[in-house]
Amino acid sequence: MRMYDIIQNKRNGLELTDAEIEFFIKGYTEGTIPDYQASALMMAIYFNGMNERETVTLTKAMAASGDTVDLSEFGNLSADKHSTGGVGDKTSLIVAPIVASLGGKVTKMSGRGLGHTGGTVDKLESIPGYNISIPEEKFKRQIHRVGMAVIGQSGNLTPADKKLYALRDVTATVDSIPLIVSSIMSKKIAAGSKNIVLDVKVGSGAFMKTPEDAETLAKEMVKIGKKCGRNISALLTDMDTPLGSAIGNSLEIIEAVKVLKGEVNNDLKEVSLALASELVSLIFGISYEEAQKRAVDALNSGLAYNKMKEWVAAQGGDVKFIENTELFKKSDHSLDIISESDGYIESMDAEAIGISSVILGAGRTTKEDTIDYSAGIILSKKTGDMVKAGDILCTLYADNKTLLEPAKEKYLSALKFSNNKPVEKPIVLKIIR
Amino acid sequence: MRMYDIIQNKRNGLELTDAEIEFFIKGYTEGTIPDYQASALMMAIYFNGMNERETVTLTKAMAASGDTVDLSEFGNLSADKHSTGGVGDKTSLIVAPIVASLGGKVTKMSGRGLGHTGGTVDKLESIPGYNISIPEEKFKRQIHRVGMAVIGQSGNLTPADKKLYALRDVTATVDSIPLIVSSIMSKKIAAGSKNIVLDVKVGSGAFMKTPEDAETLAKEMVKIGKKCGRNISALLTDMDTPLGSAIGNSLEIIEAVKVLKGEVNNDLKEVSLALASELVSLIFGISYEEAQKRAVDALNSGLAYNKMKEWVAAQGGDVKFIENTELFKKSDHSLDIISESDGYIESMDAEAIGISSVILGAGRTTKEDTIDYSAGIILSKKTGDMVKAGDILCTLYADNKTLLEPAKEKYLSALKFSNNKPVEKPIVLKIIR
Repeated sequence: MRMYDIIQNKRNGLELTDAEIEFFIKGYTEGTIPDYQASALMMAIYFNGMNERETVTLTKAMAASGDTVDLSEFGNLSADKHSTGGVGDKTSLIVAPIVASLGGKVTKMSGRGLGHTGGTVDKLESIPGYNISIPEEKFKRQIHRVGMAVIGQSGNLTPADKKLYALRDVTATVDSIPLIVSSIMSKKIAAGSKNIVLDVKVGSGAFMKTPEDAETLAKEMVKIGKKCGRNISALLTDMDTPLGSAIGNSLEIIEAVKVLKGEVNNDLKEVSLALASELVSLIFGISYEEAQKRAVDALNSGLAYNKMKEWVAAQGGDVKFIENTELFKKSDHSLDIISESDGYIESMDAEAIGISSVILGAGRTTKEDTIDYSAGIILSKKTGDMVKAGDILCTLYADNKTLLEPAKEKYLSALKFSNNKPVEKPIVLKIIR
Repeated sequence: MRMYDIIQNKRNGLELTDAEIEFFIKGYTEGTIPDYQASALMMAIYFNGMNERETVTLTKAMAASGDTVDLSEFGNLSADKHSTGGVGDKTSLIVAPIVASLGGKVTKMSGRGLGHTGGTVDKLESIPGYNISIPEEKFKRQIHRVGMAVIGQSGNLTPADKKLYALRDVTATVDSIPLIVSSIMSKKIAAGSKNIVLDVKVGSGAFMKTPEDAETLAKEMVKIGKKCGRNISALLTDMDTPLGSAIGNSLEIIEAVKVLKGEVNNDLKEVSLALASELVSLIFGISYEEAQKRAVDALNSGLAYNKMKEWVAAQGGDVKFIENTELFKKSDHSLDIISESDGYIESMDAEAIGISSVILGAGRTTKEDTIDYSAGIILSKKTGDMVKAGDILCTLYADNKTLLEPAKEKYLSALKFSNNKPVEKPIVLKIIR
């Protein structure tokens, strides 16, 4: 078998055989197939696509390219949740404790943030003592005991995807549905959970800008996940506006804790409950309505909040910070952004707001950047809100004072005002099962 | 400017700007743009093409990527001829002396053979003493004096094309009209001649298998050549059957000499005369008919033959071998292939016959292979000929006896017989001006 023929076949619009796809992934992972042939194939796939069988084979081959996590000891209770990435998206910190408190066994392997979206691992590291690197045997014991673990990606998981994604990122071949699907799903398959809920974000702050594109991606991921033997659903949720009111690492931990304590009742709570309900429904094979009732109970009764404390303690985090979020270090500097006029916020460019938060020091533009854990933004007004001149639109936080002005400029560029109240949109657009 | 954006623009079906194309060629030649980005762009061009302006810019940028030959001292008389490659194609050896004998100044830079087509440089090296490596100043003096030079590609001509072609060859991105056109034309532009005739081969032994594809390519090359300020035409000629009756290096030199001596009157002579006539017509701005009259005269009068001797002598070749081709070393072994049945030869797969000749040692399958200059095939029967059982179809020549049987098998696989005489096809299909 020759890589040349594989490229040519795909270029000519033929289906690749399973053997061809496996040959490519094996050779590319091992380094016997060079980058320049892989990128030509990626571009041919960009144009000619892949059918369901090809995508399943690619997903499985990438999942099998490195270490895989065996969660069979948790039977049908193992659970995972994945978001395609958004701004202010701290749902994992709420969904996982709810599901674990109801008997699910949640293994969440998270990444660091890069660009305008934050990473769950960075957020958790703002809790003093929290350890994201736990060996497999140890985190499995934790899951048995506590019902959940949220850790960094460890070991050599899906090296084929890592290498291929880095290549696609510099060759303009990221935006291909079968390649996106196989990249995400290979990691989920390798991570081992039986039940998976995907949060596919839609809008200005998301990878998918339109509901149509998001639905196409969601349907494909659900289809491929099922073909790989998983219970899987996808929620399409709004990312035209940042989720909740906090953006930034410790700021987001604090907001998540507040939801778990029942102190806030917002879009973040709504999306978290929907994701948790769907996952509980998958795990226990019960209706969404029944699962929703249990999830709401877990939240209202404090069960989920107690689970969060149990979990943070198990991973070495200082629980006092959860019990009293006032303990988190505050930024040295802050700046209120004041509205100069009256009107409704018609729209917010969530990506631009994410970038504003990165400017403040809350995120990374390159992998080498360090993070200011207390930096970020607290939104006082969001899309649809009525604003009067003199109102605080948001507050910016940073240890480095010189960052406040450039972040403010970026933030203001993200807002559009209107004299009329914009039509309210649902936050959970659709569930794909 | 970023290579990423250039790939993405072409992927999205946009026209590339001149600055983008020049940035790519400069960066790729210098090595600052990696192969994996170049191959992704090549595949995007395969799918989305390039318009005339883009192709002209690419051609000029590749021509300017290395050394260029300045032939301005020959005014409007400088001339070049290029074939897209065929089996038994020794027309250069006949066309160049005809044109030079009529006052044209022919600079022919040729390559070595690879795969099923032979290279002019290899053929000439079968003449003892013939030197293909001549410094620029010296070959220009030879052109002033003799009117022609046939040399190997010297110096650092079109390094961008060399690098890009090698990449396309392993990434299934060769078959793209703008890429083929810019590859061929950049070399012709860098080689400096004002007048260019292209021999675009069509059929089983050619890169272009159908007249439609060949015509598309020919029209594009002529268009781009004109935009680059050259007088240029293209002849579409048949390559469904090997040209002439000799395949192999010294065998082809012998056949070319025979045409120049007026000893044979075949398809090779017809194509050579047509190419020479078109080139003479371009150089002197005269009608094809007038140019044809001069070319036929040059051949019949022995002028062209004398020019060949003068040229070979100028490049250090032993002219006795031209005067008496019996002096060429004969192969140690030969094998007549005998027909086992009666019938007409309906078709010959010229590519398979070319490969049969390579098996005998006349060509290369990798760049490192050495050549047996006397090896090859003499065809006794060609497409359209009536054959009786017992007739000799062809004779195979090789110094290594063990190669005769595998070459015979390959040769026979190339022939199709029929009870009816096939319809005769023209050898020069079309002239594109």
